[in-house]
Amino acid sequence: MDVLHQISTVRKTVGSLKGPIGLVPTMGSLHQGHLALIKQARRDNASVVCTIFVNPTQFGSGEDYSLYPRDTEKDLSLLDSEQVDLVFCPSPEEMYPEGFDSWVNVGALTSRLEGESRPDHFRGVCTIVLKLLNIFQPDRAYFGQKDAQQAMVIERMTRDLNIGTEIVRVPIVRESDGLALSSRNTLLTIEERKAALILSHSLELAVKMYNNGQRHAEDIKQEIGSLIANEPLAIKDYISVADPVTLDEIENADAPVLIALAVRIGKIRLIDNVIIP
Amino acid sequence: MDVLHQISTVRKTVGSLKGPIGLVPTMGSLHQGHLALIKQARRDNASVVCTIFVNPTQFGSGEDYSLYPRDTEKDLSLLDSEQVDLVFCPSPEEMYPEGFDSWVNVGALTSRLEGESRPDHFRGVCTIVLKLLNIFQPDRAYFGQKDAQQAMVIERMTRDLNIGTEIVRVPIVRESDGLALSSRNTLLTIEERKAALILSHSLELAVKMYNNGQRHAEDIKQEIGSLIANEPLAIKDYISVADPVTLDEIENADAPVLIALAVRIGKIRLIDNVIIP
Repeated sequence: MDVLHQISTVRKTVGSLKGPIGLVPTMGSLHQGHLALIKQARRDNASVVCTIFVNPTQFGSGEDYSLYPRDTEKDLSLLDSEQVDLVFCPSPEEMYPEGFDSWVNVGALTSRLEGESRPDHFRGVCTIVLKLLNIFQPDRAYFGQKDAQQAMVIERMTRDLNIGTEIVRVPIVRESDGLALSSRNTLLTIEERKAALILSHSLELAVKMYNNGQRHAEDIKQEIGSLIANEPLAIKDYISVADPVTLDEIENADAPVLIALAVRIGKIRLIDNVIIP
Repeated sequence: MDVLHQISTVRKTVGSLKGPIGLVPTMGSLHQGHLALIKQARRDNASVVCTIFVNPTQFGSGEDYSLYPRDTEKDLSLLDSEQVDLVFCPSPEEMYPEGFDSWVNVGALTSRLEGESRPDHFRGVCTIVLKLLNIFQPDRAYFGQKDAQQAMVIERMTRDLNIGTEIVRVPIVRESDGLALSSRNTLLTIEERKAALILSHSLELAVKMYNNGQRHAEDIKQEIGSLIANEPLAIKDYISVADPVTLDEIENADAPVLIALAVRIGKIRLIDNVIIP
């Protein structure tokens, strides 16, 4: 497995890989969710390339950039055992050299949900993903459904800007008790880890209400809101019942519908979602 | 010469062209300035591809999008005689289908000169150029020095976003009396055509002052301003004496320096520039 740090070396090495090529961009601190992306990429492509880069431009001031978990040694050993062909671990200076000043924005889709809480987040995500797609020019790139809005935004960017890479979404991987896998889970204390189940429990409640015939988005949000309010370590950031294509909030939750939420558990902000198809 | 209208057909056809490929993006209404780009592309590459698209998103409201000159038949005949391999003439709907919502912005460079007068202009330019680069994936793309700031912005975007295309600048082509070639020149009346010489005369004056030892940017701007004020059909938009790398306005015009100006001649807005190397 090649572990590379410079864009110029990546370009040369990628040219000699057997196609089709699947790219899995990550921020490291890898878990089974990432490995599901890699295994899918392995099934679909002749070569799998992976990036580890905690992208500073997608963190707002006051967010957890410096706190974000990093464990490159463990990550590389995991990727090696998955027979990844090439890993790119650039420095922030390699990706954002002095004078860097070009940005990609996706409009309406990014003003909702995460975008409302994290104003420049998707600008950072789109910009780094476009850069990585340009460097690797992969046939396919893989993103987790846990970051549902991120996957939608990247799909829109790819279509709008005529990028020749197919974007593949991979389902959420959960712990046996239901917690969606996230690198940030490692930052939770034992008490917080228990409290974090409020996210999956909220989604289960929503699906149950839906299956019982409830269609009023406002009622679903209120029930979830009460559930979260009863968990002392949890603070609701948003609960969204939205059209899964436009992300417009809807009043009548007729399927398909995306139910998504962000909750702070102590200092750690977690997200989760479910699509009722 | 293939004349294509659909992105999907372009992708297929480009794949069978002999490399390296040179791209010349235009808004049509071709003149000798464009042909200089094409001849340069011909010298540098095995295949030359060209686009004709009056890009609506780089025109502000109240600007001359509908007025902009169009003559596709004449353009195609010119391109054919230059042995261009492929011309792409998309419709606005092909480039901006319903729901289109992704944009590329370059920061500080675009807030000056043209960007100050035309707020969303460079957002439109960068977005369409990125799309065309993604569709054609050319080895080189050619831009005229007449739009000096545009060339700089595209160079920055290409570098920042790791686009694998070399950007080549081609010198300004002028009429024998000094007027820089522009598609908009065809919109001038005979009287306005005479008055339009005020742009090249202004730059000649600036170079003369510089050669006589004048280094105070403010004095140079004032002299040019007076010259333009004396031409009844001309209204100054901006006069800039700037660093040719950052476009920061400078006080002491020590070379290298970019002197650029925009002037309205009747309803037609023209630009011109000179670099003192």
